[in-house]
Amino acid sequence: MFRNQYDTDVTVWSPQGRLHQVEYAMEAVKQGSACLGLTSKTHAVLCALKRSPNELGSYQEKIMKIDDHMGISIAGLTADARMLAKYMRTEALNHKYVYGTQLQANRLATDLADMHQRCTQSYVRRPYGVGMLIAAHDATGPHLMETSPSGNYFEYVAMAIGARSQSAKTYLEKHYQDFPAASVDDLIKHGLKALSGCITGDKELDVASVSVAIVGAGQAFEEVQGARLQAFLDAIEVEGDAAAPAPAGEPEAPADVPAPMDEGIA
Amino acid sequence: MFRNQYDTDVTVWSPQGRLHQVEYAMEAVKQGSACLGLTSKTHAVLCALKRSPNELGSYQEKIMKIDDHMGISIAGLTADARMLAKYMRTEALNHKYVYGTQLQANRLATDLADMHQRCTQSYVRRPYGVGMLIAAHDATGPHLMETSPSGNYFEYVAMAIGARSQSAKTYLEKHYQDFPAASVDDLIKHGLKALSGCITGDKELDVASVSVAIVGAGQAFEEVQGARLQAFLDAIEVEGDAAAPAPAGEPEAPADVPAPMDEGIA
Amino acid sequence: MFRNQYDTDVTVWSPQGRLHQVEYAMEAVKQGSACLGLTSKTHAVLCALKRSPNELGSYQEKIMKIDDHMGISIAGLTADARMLAKYMRTEALNHKYVYGTQLQANRLATDLADMHQRCTQSYVRRPYGVGMLIAAHDATGPHLMETSPSGNYFEYVAMAIGARSQSAKTYLEKHYQDFPAASVDDLIKHGLKALSGCITGDKELDVASVSVAIVGAGQAFEEVQGARLQAFLDAIEVEGDAAAPAPAGEPEAPADVPAPMDEGIA
Amino acid sequence: MFRNQYDTDVTVWSPQGRLHQVEYAMEAVKQGSACLGLTSKTHAVLCALKRSPNELGSYQEKIMKIDDHMGISIAGLTADARMLAKYMRTEALNHKYVYGTQLQANRLATDLADMHQRCTQSYVRRPYGVGMLIAAHDATGPHLMETSPSGNYFEYVAMAIGARSQSAKTYLEKHYQDFPAASVDDLIKHGLKALSGCITGDKELDVASVSVAIVGAGQAFEEVQGARLQAFLDAIEVEGDAAAPAPAGEPEAPADVPAPMDEGIA
Amino acid sequence: MFRNQYDTDVTVWSPQGRLHQVEYAMEAVKQGSACLGLTSKTHAVLCALKRSPNELGSYQEKIMKIDDHMGISIAGLTADARMLAKYMRTEALNHKYVYGTQLQANRLATDLADMHQRCTQSYVRRPYGVGMLIAAHDATGPHLMETSPSGNYFEYVAMAIGARSQSAKTYLEKHYQDFPAASVDDLIKHGLKALSGCITGDKELDVASVSVAIVGAGQAFEEVQGARLQAFLDAIEVEGDAAAPAPAGEPEAPADVPAPMDEGIA
Amino acid sequence: MFRNQYDTDVTVWSPQGRLHQVEYAMEAVKQGSACLGLTSKTHAVLCALKRSPNELGSYQEKIMKIDDHMGISIAGLTADARMLAKYMRTEALNHKYVYGTQLQANRLATDLADMHQRCTQSYVRRPYGVGMLIAAHDATGPHLMETSPSGNYFEYVAMAIGARSQSAKTYLEKHYQDFPAASVDDLIKHGLKALSGCITGDKELDVASVSVAIVGAGQAFEEVQGARLQAFLDAIEVEGDAAAPAPAGEPEAPADVPAPMDEGIA
Amino acid sequence: MFRNQYDTDVTVWSPQGRLHQVEYAMEAVKQGSACLGLTSKTHAVLCALKRSPNELGSYQEKIMKIDDHMGISIAGLTADARMLAKYMRTEALNHKYVYGTQLQANRLATDLADMHQRCTQSYVRRPYGVGMLIAAHDATGPHLMETSPSGNYFEYVAMAIGARSQSAKTYLEKHYQDFPAASVDDLIKHGLKALSGCITGDKELDVASVSVAIVGAGQAFEEVQGARLQAFLDAIEVEGDAAAPAPAGEPEAPADVPAPMDEGIA
Repeated sequence: MFRNQYDTDVTVWSPQGRLHQVEYAMEAVKQGSACLGLTSKTHAVLCALKRSPNELGSYQEKIMKIDDHMGISIAGLTADARMLAKYMRTEALNHKYVYGTQLQANRLATDLADMHQRCTQSYVRRPYGVGMLIAAHDATGPHLMETSPSGNYFEYVAMAIGARSQSAKTYLEKHYQDFPAASVDDLIKHGLKALSGCITGDKELDVASVSVAIVGAGQAFEEVQGARLQAFLDAIEVEGDAAAPAPAGEPEAPADVPAPMDEGIA
Repeated sequence: MFRNQYDTDVTVWSPQGRLHQVEYAMEAVKQGSACLGLTSKTHAVLCALKRSPNELGSYQEKIMKIDDHMGISIAGLTADARMLAKYMRTEALNHKYVYGTQLQANRLATDLADMHQRCTQSYVRRPYGVGMLIAAHDATGPHLMETSPSGNYFEYVAMAIGARSQSAKTYLEKHYQDFPAASVDDLIKHGLKALSGCITGDKELDVASVSVAIVGAGQAFEEVQGARLQAFLDAIEVEGDAAAPAPAGEPEAPADVPAPMDEGIA
Repeated sequence: MFRNQYDTDVTVWSPQGRLHQVEYAMEAVKQGSACLGLTSKTHAVLCALKRSPNELGSYQEKIMKIDDHMGISIAGLTADARMLAKYMRTEALNHKYVYGTQLQANRLATDLADMHQRCTQSYVRRPYGVGMLIAAHDATGPHLMETSPSGNYFEYVAMAIGARSQSAKTYLEKHYQDFPAASVDDLIKHGLKALSGCITGDKELDVASVSVAIVGAGQAFEEVQGARLQAFLDAIEVEGDAAAPAPAGEPEAPADVPAPMDEGIA
Repeated sequence: MFRNQYDTDVTVWSPQGRLHQVEYAMEAVKQGSACLGLTSKTHAVLCALKRSPNELGSYQEKIMKIDDHMGISIAGLTADARMLAKYMRTEALNHKYVYGTQLQANRLATDLADMHQRCTQSYVRRPYGVGMLIAAHDATGPHLMETSPSGNYFEYVAMAIGARSQSAKTYLEKHYQDFPAASVDDLIKHGLKALSGCITGDKELDVASVSVAIVGAGQAFEEVQGARLQAFLDAIEVEGDAAAPAPAGEPEAPADVPAPMDEGIA
Repeated sequence: MFRNQYDTDVTVWSPQGRLHQVEYAMEAVKQGSACLGLTSKTHAVLCALKRSPNELGSYQEKIMKIDDHMGISIAGLTADARMLAKYMRTEALNHKYVYGTQLQANRLATDLADMHQRCTQSYVRRPYGVGMLIAAHDATGPHLMETSPSGNYFEYVAMAIGARSQSAKTYLEKHYQDFPAASVDDLIKHGLKALSGCITGDKELDVASVSVAIVGAGQAFEEVQGARLQAFLDAIEVEGDAAAPAPAGEPEAPADVPAPMDEGIA
Repeated sequence: MFRNQYDTDVTVWSPQGRLHQVEYAMEAVKQGSACLGLTSKTHAVLCALKRSPNELGSYQEKIMKIDDHMGISIAGLTADARMLAKYMRTEALNHKYVYGTQLQANRLATDLADMHQRCTQSYVRRPYGVGMLIAAHDATGPHLMETSPSGNYFEYVAMAIGARSQSAKTYLEKHYQDFPAASVDDLIKHGLKALSGCITGDKELDVASVSVAIVGAGQAFEEVQGARLQAFLDAIEVEGDAAAPAPAGEPEAPADVPAPMDEGIA
Repeated sequence: MFRNQYDTDVTVWSPQGRLHQVEYAMEAVKQGSACLGLTSKTHAVLCALKRSPNELGSYQEKIMKIDDHMGISIAGLTADARMLAKYMRTEALNHKYVYGTQLQANRLATDLADMHQRCTQSYVRRPYGVGMLIAAHDATGPHLMETSPSGNYFEYVAMAIGARSQSAKTYLEKHYQDFPAASVDDLIKHGLKALSGCITGDKELDVASVSVAIVGAGQAFEEVQGARLQAFLDAIEVEGDAAAPAPAGEPEAPADVPAPMDEGIA
């Protein structure tokens, strides 16, 4: 308990050279429902588990469009994500207006990461509690990037974040060599199979609780919905071979944490 | 008691990735008297329990009109709600003036949620201690939305918030399939039946302590009052089938909390 | 003693969803000497107990005129009340100058309550430590409103605040059905009878220690003083039937609290 | 010792609804050497005990002229008093320049009290540690007012503040019925007799340690000095009948408090 | 140890009505080497003990000229004194430029004291840790004034401040009746005799460690140095009758305090 | 544990004259993966170990180009490094635009170090948690400089920073006399041999995990990649003579520190 | 340990009238490597010990030129020194530009000391952790001045600061009577002999680890380097008579303090 004195203010370093507040904000990401992304040579695909507060409410959106060539999937505080998405849309729009071209995905990811970084060095604002996967297709092809509360960002072939995402990561690492040449349909199927490892034991993926979106060469960012999505869900059930549920040893959120839905974590 | 050091300032994350101050503000919502909303394909209805400081005083208003096509019902700190309602009215008015059209309900809910979010990331202001149900009817039909101190918002078919609202939620979940096709009158009756589960044991719904408001296609936002409201109350008594009072196991506000009325919680 | 950590700064929520600083400011109101108000269909009356620092000093004013159609009676920190009264007078004056009409009582009460609310959400200023009863007569008839440090306000038929006000409230609840039709003189007598329950054991109401003011249809806000007030005091002594002194069980200010007069609490 | 946590910052309320910092500032007033004021129907008189740091230094001024029709006597922090007196002189001068008339005493007292109040609600400045008696004569006759660190002010017939002032107050309460009709000379004698109860045991009032000032109808604010003052001192010795020294039971400053002279308390 | 919580911030009052931070700043004055001043009817004289960091360094200046008619001697933090002296010189210069006359000593002392007072009421700056003796000669004759960290100032016939100054004060009190009629030479001799009581046991006043300055009618502010100063030192040795060294009972700086020279206390 | 009270805020000195927050920020540098630089008379070379979050992600960039004649390698918080690199690029660009010449490496290093220094004296921002090696070639020849969170910078012939860099330093100290006359190829080989001492036991340097960059006379800043890099790796394997792995006694990051990759430390 | 509560914020006085934060900053000066200065009637000389982080790095500069007639040697935080040197250069340049003459050394030292003082009275910035020796030659001849974190400054014939400087001071005190008439060469030799007492046991002064600079009549500020410096080192070895190493009783930096080089202390 003795290290606590270094973790109550983000501007304070611990003797071990760590910023505890940033690490804690990353816990909020781990409590969000899982989302993942994967890329072929031509397309990028996002898949996410949606949560609903209860039967009467709509599902919380997990995938948001930023521009025709770009979209995000989030895990963590929805309200923080909404603020950042708003910023991204404005940036993309401004770029299009000023330069007449689409904002490069890499450039926007850097700007976003810088915004995160500033909150880790400022006295005035807590770090954002949300992680993002950015799927984009621009002149340099399809991209999948992850940003985190620490102000870091990475480019990936495929990546999963959020609760129980370890299972999906294992699936993706096993199959990622197939992705570059995969068709869009295969990419989506791989994504859904990976995602099926992130749901709790007795549930199943269904049209209501899953979001899928694609973007790619000649394909504007678009969510795959309804019957089209159902077809994919049917297909992977036939194919089998989905990701195994999270193994017992995976570090889950502790049992006494209240259902994060109440606090706006999606 | 050891986690306390993370909950005295809203800008501080706990090691579990939680913002305690936001959670505590949500407690104020749970202590407000219950209100609920439900929607058919054409209308949205709000019902709320009103509290009176004592026999000599007027009842605290629980339902406020924002614009002709929109109104809210609140649970939590009345003073905070008043500030936010004022903001909403100004926004709605400005939109009408600038664009000549009614502000879309969804847009206003986002703005409101952003205002909440800012208070969860700022050093300077505590989070607002009020939850809202927004009932609106616009070009996209009737809507029911909930905003919370966390800066989150959801759209619902039907929803109840505030003290002892679990009982109402149970009723709504049981009957919600009847709502889309229901007439306005039936919607109101469903609302009142659900609400009757939120009052304490020996009391009964009456004209003075209940607020009902409707908005819908061809129906500007309007409170249902007096004889018209009495008729509905009489009708549901005849029909029976109201929500059961809150079960023993429901997490109520602890007994030693003072009557929240004194502190401006409605 | 464990909840203390949440009550040293007004912007901090306690785990129970309470704002302790606001509650403590309301204690200052409870320590002020009692004042009350009551309304008929045509008039509103304010009655208050005045305190004097000692024999050589003037009594502290408890009733202040805001405008021709409006006045207030206060309980709590006099210095805070003076600042707020100054604000109210300016608002009323500005409204008259700009619109040529009298500021509606309801509107001013809202503005005042908003000013209170801001102090409950700000880092920079403590909440005001004063409660007010506003008596007004405008186009919509006579009004009696109460504002409190929490930023809440209510409209009442009759209300009493301050030390030992429970006894007055009991009297008012017992007789309030007579008020709407009562003459101004009867209203004043009711007010004085109710007020007589708020003085400590062996003292009696007299011209020096009681303030009475009226406002109504065709009656500008005016204090009732001297012989006219004495006549009322004589009358209620003849009539008897005054409020019983505060019962033993009433929550008084603890005995070890110093005489609040020294600290500017009136 | 448990209430301490509420008294380290002026903007914080204690659970009993008290502002401890304001109360502590009032302790500084109680440690200043005594001063008093009294009024007849035509004049106001100020009397004060002066302290000298030692034989080599001038006595600390306790009475300051504000304008031709107004002066003050102070108890508490001299440096704070000097700042406030400067403010009062500027206000009086500005008023004379702008309106061509003398600033009404009551008006200035309110402004001064408001300045005190602001320091009790602000984070940035401690409350002023000085009490004042204002003697003035304006169109409404002679006035004696007291302001205190709490932002409160009172009008008095006669009043004494500062160390051992209880004895003077007792004298004034015993004789105040003689004041309205008293001549200026009698007023001064009453003041000096009352003041003689505030000096410690074996000392006596003398020309060096006493300040007396008068203001009234046709009498600009003026200090009574030298032979004229000596005559009054001789007279009261002959007359006897002075105030008794402070009784044993009076709450004095605790013995272990250092001589406040060193800290600028006069 | 229980009063500590009130002494860590200058804006906080202790329950005894004291400002501990101001008192602590005055300790820095008591640790500075002694300086004193004395006045006749025509002249004012300053005498001070200088300290040298070691044999290789110049002595720290203890007397500073402000204007032709005014100078100061200081005890306490040299760096603070330098800032204040700079302010005084600017004020004196501006006054001469704007009004064509010399700034009255009294006026400057007030300004300086106000600057001290502001630091005792502000959150942002600690109180200045320096005491000053101001010697001046203006239209109203010679003056000796003292300012202190508390924002207080006094006029004196003669005064000594700093370490072991009690001995000098005793000498001055014994002889002050001779000062008004004394010649400048006698004044200086009195000053040096008083000062000789402030040096530690076995040392003696010499030209290097003593500063003397005079100002008066027809005498611009000027330091007495070299042979002229030596003559005075020789004279007082012949005359004898110097102040006794500080008696055992005098409150000295505690033995464990490091040599204040290192911290810039002169 | 007693010195902790001096290390929670960067503006506070410890009694030993240390700034603990700066020291802790330097711990973040020690946790970054190793990078090193070395210079001959004509060229400067940077070598760095890259980390990858997992198999699916790209490696974190450790070497960044600033201008044609300058680049950096970093150890510590990537997000902080990105902000500083952005600043450096802007400075270099501005200089070229304004003066038409390349910004001297020394000048930029000073600016950067000043930026670090400001964060060690400011209340508002934590010190940057990143160390940098700057390799540049300008009119004065090749340069290697190191900047650190303390605001210090040094010029070196060769230097290594980051985790397990002690082994590389030992290699560099052993061979540095060969560097001035070495060819670029030899410099790179020396760099890779030194770097091979910084990897954990059973791993080996490969094209994916190593970054190499050169700058020099007639050689713009350029990364050595792919086959060209593989050739160097093959060559050093043949030559042998690489740095020994870190000795057991080297102060490593404690075992219980989580993999720093998660927190954006590269 | 009980006095700690007064040393965590520079604006807070301790009960003994001390500013602990200033004292702690002065500890950083004591940990810097030694430097010294000495003056004849015509010249001023600075000598300093340089430290190198390790064999591969350049030595940290200890002597910096400010202008043609002025230079400094520093002990303490290098980064702080760099900021202050930059300020001094700008001031000197501005003065030359505006007045066409060289800035007087005394004037610059005052400005610098004022900058230090401000950091001892401000909330926002820690005191600078560096001491300086200023060597200058202007119209009033050669000067040697010392500034310290406390905002104090002194003029010296000769002075040494930094780690183990006591030994050098002892040497200087023994020989300072020879300095005024000494030739530049003799001054340098005296300086080097004094400096040799500040190195740890078994090391020796050599060209790499010693900096020497001179300024004087007809001699612009210039470092003595290479062969010329070696000649002096050879000469003093021949002459012997150097300062004795620091005696055992000297207060050294405690053994457990890490090598200050890492933290930028030079």
